[in-house]
Amino acid sequence: MSGRGFASDNHSGVHPEVLEAIAAANDAHAPAYGADRFTAALASRFREHFGSDAVGLPVFNGSGANVVAIAAVTRPWQAVACPETAHLNVDEAGAPEKVAGVKLLPVTTPDGKLTPDLLERAIPWSRVGDEHFAQPRVISISNSTELGTVYDPDEVAALADFAHQRDLLLHVDGARLANAAVAAGASLGDLTTGAGADLLSFGGTKNGLLAGEAVVFLRRGLGDGAASIRKGALQLASKMRFLSAQLDALLGPGDLWRRNAAHANEMAARLADAITAVEGVELAHPAQANGVFAHLPAAAIEQLEFGEGGERAFYVWEEEAGVVRLMTSWDTTPGDVDGFTERLRRAAGR
Amino acid sequence: MSGRGFASDNHSGVHPEVLEAIAAANDAHAPAYGADRFTAALASRFREHFGSDAVGLPVFNGSGANVVAIAAVTRPWQAVACPETAHLNVDEAGAPEKVAGVKLLPVTTPDGKLTPDLLERAIPWSRVGDEHFAQPRVISISNSTELGTVYDPDEVAALADFAHQRDLLLHVDGARLANAAVAAGASLGDLTTGAGADLLSFGGTKNGLLAGEAVVFLRRGLGDGAASIRKGALQLASKMRFLSAQLDALLGPGDLWRRNAAHANEMAARLADAITAVEGVELAHPAQANGVFAHLPAAAIEQLEFGEGGERAFYVWEEEAGVVRLMTSWDTTPGDVDGFTERLRRAAGR
Amino acid sequence: MSGRGFASDNHSGVHPEVLEAIAAANDAHAPAYGADRFTAALASRFREHFGSDAVGLPVFNGSGANVVAIAAVTRPWQAVACPETAHLNVDEAGAPEKVAGVKLLPVTTPDGKLTPDLLERAIPWSRVGDEHFAQPRVISISNSTELGTVYDPDEVAALADFAHQRDLLLHVDGARLANAAVAAGASLGDLTTGAGADLLSFGGTKNGLLAGEAVVFLRRGLGDGAASIRKGALQLASKMRFLSAQLDALLGPGDLWRRNAAHANEMAARLADAITAVEGVELAHPAQANGVFAHLPAAAIEQLEFGEGGERAFYVWEEEAGVVRLMTSWDTTPGDVDGFTERLRRAAGR
Amino acid sequence: MSGRGFASDNHSGVHPEVLEAIAAANDAHAPAYGADRFTAALASRFREHFGSDAVGLPVFNGSGANVVAIAAVTRPWQAVACPETAHLNVDEAGAPEKVAGVKLLPVTTPDGKLTPDLLERAIPWSRVGDEHFAQPRVISISNSTELGTVYDPDEVAALADFAHQRDLLLHVDGARLANAAVAAGASLGDLTTGAGADLLSFGGTKNGLLAGEAVVFLRRGLGDGAASIRKGALQLASKMRFLSAQLDALLGPGDLWRRNAAHANEMAARLADAITAVEGVELAHPAQANGVFAHLPAAAIEQLEFGEGGERAFYVWEEEAGVVRLMTSWDTTPGDVDGFTERLRRAAGR
Repeated sequence: MSGRGFASDNHSGVHPEVLEAIAAANDAHAPAYGADRFTAALASRFREHFGSDAVGLPVFNGSGANVVAIAAVTRPWQAVACPETAHLNVDEAGAPEKVAGVKLLPVTTPDGKLTPDLLERAIPWSRVGDEHFAQPRVISISNSTELGTVYDPDEVAALADFAHQRDLLLHVDGARLANAAVAAGASLGDLTTGAGADLLSFGGTKNGLLAGEAVVFLRRGLGDGAASIRKGALQLASKMRFLSAQLDALLGPGDLWRRNAAHANEMAARLADAITAVEGVELAHPAQANGVFAHLPAAAIEQLEFGEGGERAFYVWEEEAGVVRLMTSWDTTPGDVDGFTERLRRAAGR
Repeated sequence: MSGRGFASDNHSGVHPEVLEAIAAANDAHAPAYGADRFTAALASRFREHFGSDAVGLPVFNGSGANVVAIAAVTRPWQAVACPETAHLNVDEAGAPEKVAGVKLLPVTTPDGKLTPDLLERAIPWSRVGDEHFAQPRVISISNSTELGTVYDPDEVAALADFAHQRDLLLHVDGARLANAAVAAGASLGDLTTGAGADLLSFGGTKNGLLAGEAVVFLRRGLGDGAASIRKGALQLASKMRFLSAQLDALLGPGDLWRRNAAHANEMAARLADAITAVEGVELAHPAQANGVFAHLPAAAIEQLEFGEGGERAFYVWEEEAGVVRLMTSWDTTPGDVDGFTERLRRAAGR
Repeated sequence: MSGRGFASDNHSGVHPEVLEAIAAANDAHAPAYGADRFTAALASRFREHFGSDAVGLPVFNGSGANVVAIAAVTRPWQAVACPETAHLNVDEAGAPEKVAGVKLLPVTTPDGKLTPDLLERAIPWSRVGDEHFAQPRVISISNSTELGTVYDPDEVAALADFAHQRDLLLHVDGARLANAAVAAGASLGDLTTGAGADLLSFGGTKNGLLAGEAVVFLRRGLGDGAASIRKGALQLASKMRFLSAQLDALLGPGDLWRRNAAHANEMAARLADAITAVEGVELAHPAQANGVFAHLPAAAIEQLEFGEGGERAFYVWEEEAGVVRLMTSWDTTPGDVDGFTERLRRAAGR
Repeated sequence: MSGRGFASDNHSGVHPEVLEAIAAANDAHAPAYGADRFTAALASRFREHFGSDAVGLPVFNGSGANVVAIAAVTRPWQAVACPETAHLNVDEAGAPEKVAGVKLLPVTTPDGKLTPDLLERAIPWSRVGDEHFAQPRVISISNSTELGTVYDPDEVAALADFAHQRDLLLHVDGARLANAAVAAGASLGDLTTGAGADLLSFGGTKNGLLAGEAVVFLRRGLGDGAASIRKGALQLASKMRFLSAQLDALLGPGDLWRRNAAHANEMAARLADAITAVEGVELAHPAQANGVFAHLPAAAIEQLEFGEGGERAFYVWEEEAGVVRLMTSWDTTPGDVDGFTERLRRAAGR
């Protein structure tokens, strides 16, 4: 494919600095399963970013991170409240239920974001203590959300307070935490540990890695048994040094996590600005991170969904409403944005 | 660490040709989750090696491959017979039971290899049809085994016949299939599809990849639903092109799988020859692939288990019997073998 | 407790004819696990009521029936669409997810009843075939519903057609099927097999049994493996003759199922009529079977929720809206109804 | 069937006192799910027998009791050591693995009984702390065993000590605890709580109940979350009063548990004595409780396995060795024993 579409930030490749880190880690033998010096170094990085109690376990992918995180802090037959639109709920093929053994309690939201009010009303709190009802143990939010919106630290803190008052934990699905932090003008720690979150799925793959995420327990005592759970959930990498080296490249002094996310967010802002100048186009949600959700004219959708080489340019998110999702990534260029906008203008003008 | 020990073939790094393949696949955007051209090319490779009905699904790791394979062809509450020493039984933290929902029926073997006779006696076949007893559905063997021994095509065929006569399937845990094929002087296909096996976990990580294995269904109709199962078992890579490109590097025209395995096997043979010339050292099992299991004098074990830099040189496999496991890999050098032998000679001689 | 409240049809005891059937079955020894003559006789009863292809398996309780039924016709990581208010969704502690391994797709309904329209809109059918989304395999309805409403045979048939057009199955949670059949003026078979349903949880406990439900597969080929699944789901009774004898008492020539359900429904109708004559009381849902859901004045709820002996008279179903659930059963008397109404009148009048 | 065979203690019916207790509990309405006075009374009984910290939860059947007990004290991916012959291992269709999510570590024994020595050798304790290996958390024994043998309090205490030294718990599968206690001349409490056991599956069904077992947590703090687990494992009876009343009849002042078990044990002793006087018959294991395992001449097995009415007289336990299992129960008569012995004498004499 020539050029880059906006179908997914997963369609992007590996950032050159990450490839270099992989090559640099490819140095003779190293102990498997995390007993290597790259993983030890990464452990320090997690503490630098997420506080001195943070313990991070590298895993392969985002669903793996979420399921391991949830399984580590719940017992089977407990429940996890999350937005109806959560990746956990609609994009993990029921793995949280099947592998972690929990029930999800989906909450309808206007913009992919939970609030104490929404939770107060949607969850039948009167059934706490009732053995017939799967008992809530975790509240899970995605930051940034699957709809491109962002929680700021105060909003996270409000949810953490709400959770803790009910003896629940707050989990952050941070597959795109970097984008959220840049958007909120906060550090990774301010947006999580600092705001009272208890555990985190930290994402790397969408932000320039080949593959690599991590479960991060932000408070003492939460991760007991997590090593067994990671192994049992099929997320223990044998040559772990290569996962760790990638994550370390992201979190190290070069702040690659921030550079990549800032760029992707900037491209999303540019895209949102540009396309909303086209007649008939308007945003479905504020484009706060690296996703732009927009109503496009039906003709434009039909014409542009698949690009010149037949590659997908975007996903239609809401069929009837004509809302599409446009994701930018660390390698999106201004030219990609401008070219798409130009094609959109032509398609919309017909 | 300077030098290379024999603790695990997982301690080795990534073969340069594999790193090159990763870099070559890092070409702009590609569809996620396997809809890319690298994965399409790999699908052809699987058919070339394993027959025209073979369907291969890349996954992250060996436990993942085994669990997805088993889950795809069983229903919960069925059972899988395997050697007591199988990775499935002793090194997957109960994931086959927990995630695939099956019961394992471990069979004691002298050398890590099942035979029809052993199965005939160990499994209570009279309980087939008895709802109280988890019903056998799969026989699983590892080739090469966890004890460094190898099944030749005739032995695999005998087990496949045994399985099929009882309406069971034969699964091969091929985390080291390449080593087995080289040892048996057989092609990958001759040792699996050709011998009647039904499904395969094909290993790459131990043979020069960064990470990458595959579940390969060798006959039509076996893999129904496997895509959902792979996703649900947390083994679906988003940037799958990078797994596929690695596996393709292994299975492509350069026959890297064979070169790497042949080298590792050769180093194991050299090691077995050299150490058995040392007084007090003898093999516990024939060193047929890339693992050498040997009785070492207790003093030698104590002195050599951890090398100069404190790195592990080998694992003690049977504590009381004083048996250690020595694994060679694609990057083991004759110097590594000779150096270790020399240290062993000195330690044993004291 | 003197008198009977309306907290649950589970609070009722065992019908005398059922106790007699238990005593009659207590005749010397009988083979365990269903190889007895009472279970054989029951098998014929299921065929009489549900058609010649019906195969019924007695189980202990309603959650057990639902989970075994679902597990028998799904593979892990598939999904079941049901009303948000379904027992399956809110009263089984996540067992369908944990034990059957499926995901539930809850659908909001006005009255506890699914319709093709509601399903069409609520389920993201565009994701059929998408491995990231748990794939719908079953539509589950309760008849009568958890809100006291009833599907007639045409409504069931419309849902069966809808399901079959999408290659799904229709499951009926018939914990109160007897009440539904009486309400709809239909036979048990007309309301299930005849209307195209595929599988059924048939309820007995709420209709006069000590304990006893059954999973009934209404079409050939659906129950393969169900015996193992029942055992594995902990629902195989050793002295099964006593479950079977109870169910046989219900389904036998005396039509106890109908007599009990007709009486309970009649008492519910009497109760609905009587209480809606009280000022400030109105029905929240039509009282079609043996449940009456009514708005009561707040003062009346407070005063009446717990009866004279401190026993619960009803459950508050919707706290804010002041809706209570009143269940009648086979042993509710007109005096129970009239006495409660009188107390309500006094409480409401204050 | 005329007469009673020895196929299973599950083939026996309900003791008249138990039927009376059921009828007595059938008194108007009672709260469901255990909030009734019969269940409250039973809770006291459990404390009387098992100590003041004992908490008992009635369940439907023995597999249910075992799985709920195990699930309550383990986390998924942990492991349970048990004899290879344990009901848990060979007669529960993989439910411990599937529903509780644990791995079983079966230990070969000569007589169905674990000892510290056997455990010391069979379990790879060096792998404690190794995330690849399912971590032992519980040791489970059956008392009496599936081979008719009995642990005395000292033997249980030795296993409890062994377990506690390794931070494990000792579970007793007491499906036939009453028979064991009578055989050991111990109280129920002496054989469990008093000997250091931590949790118990207490059996009733095989000892004269219609259906009814209980999970009993013998120490404080072990049963947290057990109510949810019982519900989720499909073992929560709605009309629980009828389970509780049965168990109360067994454990109440009349000591029905002891009378029934003593009678069954006595009949087993009579049977063992009588048949071993027949030429060619010898015991395979000491007949310590209510099971007699004996080598019979092949001709006798063939002739007697199925009785006059085609009913099963016993099960062949070891096909090749010609060992059969003969179970006595609360209703076995001396005439049953003598009649069988006479038939055996004739069959063996041919």
